[in-house]
Amino acid sequence: MKDGSAFLNDNAQRIADGMIRDAERLRIAVSKGPLGETLIDAGSKSPGGIEAGLRMAEAAMGGLGSIAAVMDRASEKWPFALEVRSSQPVLACLGSQYAGWNLSNDDYFAMGSGPARALARVEALFTTLTYRDTSSSAVLILETAEPPPMPVVEKVAKATGLAADKLTFLYAPTQSLAGTVQIVSRVLEVALHKANDLKFPLENIVDGMAAAPIPAPHPDFLAAMGRTNDAIIYGGLVQLFVKGPVEAAMELADQLPSRVSRDYGQPFADIFKQFKGDFYAIDPLLFSPAEVLVTAIETGDTFRRGGRDAAMLERSLG
Amino acid sequence: MKDGSAFLNDNAQRIADGMIRDAERLRIAVSKGPLGETLIDAGSKSPGGIEAGLRMAEAAMGGLGSIAAVMDRASEKWPFALEVRSSQPVLACLGSQYAGWNLSNDDYFAMGSGPARALARVEALFTTLTYRDTSSSAVLILETAEPPPMPVVEKVAKATGLAADKLTFLYAPTQSLAGTVQIVSRVLEVALHKANDLKFPLENIVDGMAAAPIPAPHPDFLAAMGRTNDAIIYGGLVQLFVKGPVEAAMELADQLPSRVSRDYGQPFADIFKQFKGDFYAIDPLLFSPAEVLVTAIETGDTFRRGGRDAAMLERSLG
Amino acid sequence: MKDGSAFLNDNAQRIADGMIRDAERLRIAVSKGPLGETLIDAGSKSPGGIEAGLRMAEAAMGGLGSIAAVMDRASEKWPFALEVRSSQPVLACLGSQYAGWNLSNDDYFAMGSGPARALARVEALFTTLTYRDTSSSAVLILETAEPPPMPVVEKVAKATGLAADKLTFLYAPTQSLAGTVQIVSRVLEVALHKANDLKFPLENIVDGMAAAPIPAPHPDFLAAMGRTNDAIIYGGLVQLFVKGPVEAAMELADQLPSRVSRDYGQPFADIFKQFKGDFYAIDPLLFSPAEVLVTAIETGDTFRRGGRDAAMLERSLG
Repeated sequence: MKDGSAFLNDNAQRIADGMIRDAERLRIAVSKGPLGETLIDAGSKSPGGIEAGLRMAEAAMGGLGSIAAVMDRASEKWPFALEVRSSQPVLACLGSQYAGWNLSNDDYFAMGSGPARALARVEALFTTLTYRDTSSSAVLILETAEPPPMPVVEKVAKATGLAADKLTFLYAPTQSLAGTVQIVSRVLEVALHKANDLKFPLENIVDGMAAAPIPAPHPDFLAAMGRTNDAIIYGGLVQLFVKGPVEAAMELADQLPSRVSRDYGQPFADIFKQFKGDFYAIDPLLFSPAEVLVTAIETGDTFRRGGRDAAMLERSLG
Repeated sequence: MKDGSAFLNDNAQRIADGMIRDAERLRIAVSKGPLGETLIDAGSKSPGGIEAGLRMAEAAMGGLGSIAAVMDRASEKWPFALEVRSSQPVLACLGSQYAGWNLSNDDYFAMGSGPARALARVEALFTTLTYRDTSSSAVLILETAEPPPMPVVEKVAKATGLAADKLTFLYAPTQSLAGTVQIVSRVLEVALHKANDLKFPLENIVDGMAAAPIPAPHPDFLAAMGRTNDAIIYGGLVQLFVKGPVEAAMELADQLPSRVSRDYGQPFADIFKQFKGDFYAIDPLLFSPAEVLVTAIETGDTFRRGGRDAAMLERSLG
Repeated sequence: MKDGSAFLNDNAQRIADGMIRDAERLRIAVSKGPLGETLIDAGSKSPGGIEAGLRMAEAAMGGLGSIAAVMDRASEKWPFALEVRSSQPVLACLGSQYAGWNLSNDDYFAMGSGPARALARVEALFTTLTYRDTSSSAVLILETAEPPPMPVVEKVAKATGLAADKLTFLYAPTQSLAGTVQIVSRVLEVALHKANDLKFPLENIVDGMAAAPIPAPHPDFLAAMGRTNDAIIYGGLVQLFVKGPVEAAMELADQLPSRVSRDYGQPFADIFKQFKGDFYAIDPLLFSPAEVLVTAIETGDTFRRGGRDAAMLERSLG
């Protein structure tokens, strides 16, 4: 990588710097933590908002994706949606955006998302991603109400090989507007992640576009988590462009929609309760968009599977 | 406000400077007035266009909003719409965009819009807005065919405490493409303004998104004014995110759609004629979007009221 | 033209420079050719993608247009579309984007598109366009899998009066994602071009917006060309804003939709085969969007003609 554009953390740092510059517009609060780390509160003590969530999501994708809030009048009850695109979907979504780095510590629960993961490379996922980030600063996104405690900052510093004052943490709880937007923006990422679970070769996924309705935030954590998941599981749409044999593309399309999952058909919050809050007991095949298009660019075929589930959206999204 | 981002006039100045740089692309004319003020003709003697209108609208919102022209194929006859968002809706819409500053003088009729209002603070509305602008230049938007005459420039200079050469006036008549776009972009602002009229606490409105069809401009002032108003009154859509008690959110939703108004149900131009051109005799509750969603973020409820009025759009929009 | 904004090649050069900076994000390859010309491979040996196609299209329009990939859920089978706008439609589309410069040489077939055409001015079309470009570099877009051979580079250098090292060639074949996007982005341009064929005075076209579905690319050249054409011919939508007599606007609307053409009603690839690959034997009136709105700004009337042809899209787009 001769060029700076794929240094995901550098890209995310530019986005974070822009957020700091526009702090008033975004209604976010910027401060320094005890180890010199930069803390951006985008929806906890600060109100934040939709715009802050869009920027967080762009930072989470390491600057390799586009995210917009768009009108969708085909959807009567949720007339605004998020649209997510990337021509580097594997790097943007799996190398960066996926919330896969377990940073929990004592009673602080957090799964780290964002390009700092690509510097740390502590997750199993990175055995399949060849990308190496060599940025000199790192950005991490946290779906939390609290900034990371000192041991978590130290853990991130150590794993990324950077001093704490080179770290930026962007955080907003699930219940906030920015959190809602940032989470639903994973509508493309979940498709990539499930494709990987299905053993579809990641290097064959060359482009992707996705969309999902913007649900109302909910003050209860469980309900908020339920809605953000349901926006994707029952309302999400994705189109992936893939290389390789047409049969593999068709099989991916067959398996990709959320409705193939054993656990499909209940609001996510109910499923979560049914499994007594054990996230990892839930069928991982549930986590994907409702409606899927897979285009095999080597034959020109498009396979369309699944579909938006209006009844489930009605039950869950409020 | 430690940070520059909320200095609405500085933001608008950057947008105006960008317009000046892109004058040919926007087909606008830039000149200096007799007192050294900068004059941007975006649709009077210069053709201007949709792009010029979008930029004017962003300047009018003090740089705190996003405005886009988007396809809306759910709307067969007006397949392009404006989408407006702000995570600072009160400041962007009421502190800046509202055309509330009466600058009429002799036979020059103009209501000033834009962030210069927040420096001047001569309107009653500013008793409820705590924001103080300290920019060293000011931007004003005028829905007129003529640049402001000298006494108006002097009035603005005096009220803002700035020299005339620090003032930029962006103007385009109601009948122009840029004027049409700039006016219909008020679809979010009218909702905010009506919420204020309804005594809903402004500090509880934390985010907003809105949309309205782009009507064809009309060469007749009355017809043009009618269409821009009707695009909002009969075709507008808004979603507000509010804090505070759920009952207040529901009451706001009940009252917010234009159809609650006594004067709803005629093309705006007819209503205007019926009241013999006395704008202030028209029921102020008419001025708001047709379709409203109010989301109470403290409970997660969304209240949906009103609806797009296809028959009235058909009668008015051409 | 006192101002830099209308120097189409300067604008396009800035866009090309941005592409070079973001080469990794766009998955394009940048190199220097034997004469020092800059070569950007956006979909031949490099994968490229949708984002690369969007940037190519903006360069092709000389920086005078906006192009976005947008969700269109009103279209079930092709839920993502391209939206194209310009407030300088004649310059952007005919002065720059139209692929009208025949640069074929031996077995290299290429029609040059982009602002270099406005410097060369070798096409008959430029007798009706008064714009003169005085940029010191030039950008050309080629719908090819191969970079231009040396004689073509020399021809462009000579015609533009520039040294070869001042030339940038952006190329991607019809079959690539970037090519698909770049070609379908001509949905506004074909309307302008047909208006010119219909002898509608170009100076009366003041603004334009258009959209068309994003078809799946196809590995076969003929099928790929067919789909990109059919996306416009059977799925395209355009709204033009025109000056002048209302009768002329109505006549333009009557003639503009693709369905007035003698050759309408077959997938484009079949028509092409029927005419044995002789592009110029095909009725030129076929090349335009399916659905047309012409707004006469001097009367406020809008004429709507044609319509999306779902059956034909179904047959062609896959």
